Amino acid sequence: MNKTADPEGVSLSRHFCFQFGEVSSSVIIQEALPRPEELRRFLETGNSAFGALLVCDKNTLPLARSMGGELPMAVLEPGEENKRWEAVEKILLSARRQGLGRDGFFIGVGGGAVCDLAAFAASVYMRGTGLILCPTSLLGMVDASLGGKTGFDLGGIKNLAGTFYPAALVFIAAEALHSLPGREWKSGMAELIKTALLERDPSFFSMLQEPFETPSQDGGKILALIEKAVRVKGSIVEADPRETGGGRILLNLGHTFGHALESALGLGTVSHGQAVAWGLARSCELGQKLGITPPERGREIQATLKAWNYETSLSYPLTLFSGKTEPEGRGFWRAFKEALFNDKKKETSVLRFVVPAAEGAQAVTKNALADSYIGDLCSGGSFSPGGG
Amino acid sequence: MNKTADPEGVSLSRHFCFQFGEVSSSVIIQEALPRPEELRRFLETGNSAFGALLVCDKNTLPLARSMGGELPMAVLEPGEENKRWEAVEKILLSARRQGLGRDGFFIGVGGGAVCDLAAFAASVYMRGTGLILCPTSLLGMVDASLGGKTGFDLGGIKNLAGTFYPAALVFIAAEALHSLPGREWKSGMAELIKTALLERDPSFFSMLQEPFETPSQDGGKILALIEKAVRVKGSIVEADPRETGGGRILLNLGHTFGHALESALGLGTVSHGQAVAWGLARSCELGQKLGITPPERGREIQATLKAWNYETSLSYPLTLFSGKTEPEGRGFWRAFKEALFNDKKKETSVLRFVVPAAEGAQAVTKNALADSYIGDLCSGGSFSPGGG
Repeated sequence: MNKTADPEGVSLSRHFCFQFGEVSSSVIIQEALPRPEELRRFLETGNSAFGALLVCDKNTLPLARSMGGELPMAVLEPGEENKRWEAVEKILLSARRQGLGRDGFFIGVGGGAVCDLAAFAASVYMRGTGLILCPTSLLGMVDASLGGKTGFDLGGIKNLAGTFYPAALVFIAAEALHSLPGREWKSGMAELIKTALLERDPSFFSMLQEPFETPSQDGGKILALIEKAVRVKGSIVEADPRETGGGRILLNLGHTFGHALESALGLGTVSHGQAVAWGLARSCELGQKLGITPPERGREIQATLKAWNYETSLSYPLTLFSGKTEPEGRGFWRAFKEALFNDKKKETSVLRFVVPAAEGAQAVTKNALADSYIGDLCSGGSFSPGGG
Repeated sequence: MNKTADPEGVSLSRHFCFQFGEVSSSVIIQEALPRPEELRRFLETGNSAFGALLVCDKNTLPLARSMGGELPMAVLEPGEENKRWEAVEKILLSARRQGLGRDGFFIGVGGGAVCDLAAFAASVYMRGTGLILCPTSLLGMVDASLGGKTGFDLGGIKNLAGTFYPAALVFIAAEALHSLPGREWKSGMAELIKTALLERDPSFFSMLQEPFETPSQDGGKILALIEKAVRVKGSIVEADPRETGGGRILLNLGHTFGHALESALGLGTVSHGQAVAWGLARSCELGQKLGITPPERGREIQATLKAWNYETSLSYPLTLFSGKTEPEGRGFWRAFKEALFNDKKKETSVLRFVVPAAEGAQAVTKNALADSYIGDLCSGGSFSPGGG
């Protein structure tokens, strides 16, 4: 790890290097956004005018322009609901129009969706080109940009199509968060809480138990949290880069329930962070039922999620149908259950859940107790107009 | 290598195992098609009813049914022109409808297009599922199914999107060739000739100099040729699995010109084999101009291609515009030149050609002599209605 003072003394730059299977992936964490010259240093082709394509969405276009200078661009529609093949196709055809070669780079500048799409496109363009990610959302910084998972949604299923393709470089600049809307902060904070729960050392989680103001003026605090998240995630992925050894499944904490919620409501209805927070609350309940999550820890987690203003009540999804007819509520739980059993993390016949343990988290195979919890969840959360 | 006598004494079964980067890939070559029980032996999931999806096209449906028994199927439209995203999406959504998990298998049964599509879909479904390929065309057996290249066409560019994803098992059964139409034989024979030209030992090429009847009743001869091609291709790919070290580029012999021909004419206008044969003839001319291809070898290759009834004359593409107007012919050479410089094999600024050498083949970087050859090619082959 290198640690260098910024010439103006304003921020530190930290450099991590992970080895994900055959690929090494560098992460640079600093306050300031990279300038075009900095970015160009990483474009090893001598021909940067055509050697790179910036990928951003309409919201991150100004940031992409400030980092990328005159590099050509593919500008996507913003939003999780546009994480679809059409966006991938747009990136690939833009690269082709620019004459980008296999030794060129795709540079994703944006939130989780832009990073996932740019990375997927890089993994298939001419069977694999260079990839740099500059996440601009907290979600992208603490999760989506690191560890090589790429993908897009298909047939209403999140990331049904995807690849493992770690970025050669992830450039995390806290400055990008200054203009982040509140909803986006909220989306990333749930992922940060999840990552903190995977760490056996309780100091990471304890930094999150008291909410602090976001967007935060305290660049130091958020940088420290991002750095902790990058370390935790990076070391989990290093041990199991392609999710074959079992360790990586821990990163799904809160996501099996969360993804099913997103699928059943229709992708984009709630933010990914809200879905993960709701899923974390469910994993605490399941973990307590299984005797793995100590009740005190379950309460702490639920309290932290509420303190960050997440909706954690079991019946929260039903409040979204408020004023509509009862069959929609019943239909929701049917769709939820179906999505849960089709969750892309499942192997053909084995569904696994991750639940908080006394320290860190633990993966458990679906068993009779889990079935009973899911049965209660899908019937107990009965329809009540107006929510509750 | 194992060599076992068939119980009925009809055919031999040969088993090769290659190591392509992190992945090991087995190839079984035999006369008889695998029976459903044989295929099931390779499906390591205990739950084969939902553990595999057959991928075929309307032409290979009967073969797929005879191999796969009651396994679920995705049936594609036949033809190179359907090697598009829509076909990939159909496969992915079929797998999803069948509840296929990440530990399941896609089993591609068909020619080059079906194998490329099934393999691409397997590489991205839930970020990678199992893959078995049963090529039913000569092209698939000697080229497309081995070595991990997957892909589909986009924006009129062959394989603009693709991955490296070797099949766990390639099952080559000469019996599948018995019903192959003449055009398909012709498509594969060019690839076989190309592979023979890469081998320093001249005995492989000499087996192809005298055309034999196809579809051949002589299962032994074609099996021997396929086996030679599998050995040559397998060892080249083992040395350079992701086309990064330089060795794998040799497999592009005839393809840089051939792909540009296919692109400029519109994908599907001529067979891939015809395009490769025309491209081989051009590489001989270029190789002679560069002093790498001995004139005698160039003549032998051109004669062999003609003996197999391939169109090799420089102006052959123009005959396809016969009776149409001159601007179409001029437009062809413009499109050809553009496609040549955008060939997906090129790095950003370096275009390389492969030409036959005294023994084997050799890659050369585009230089002034090559430019002059291409200049002559694109102006010399001027428009003459009725063909030239």
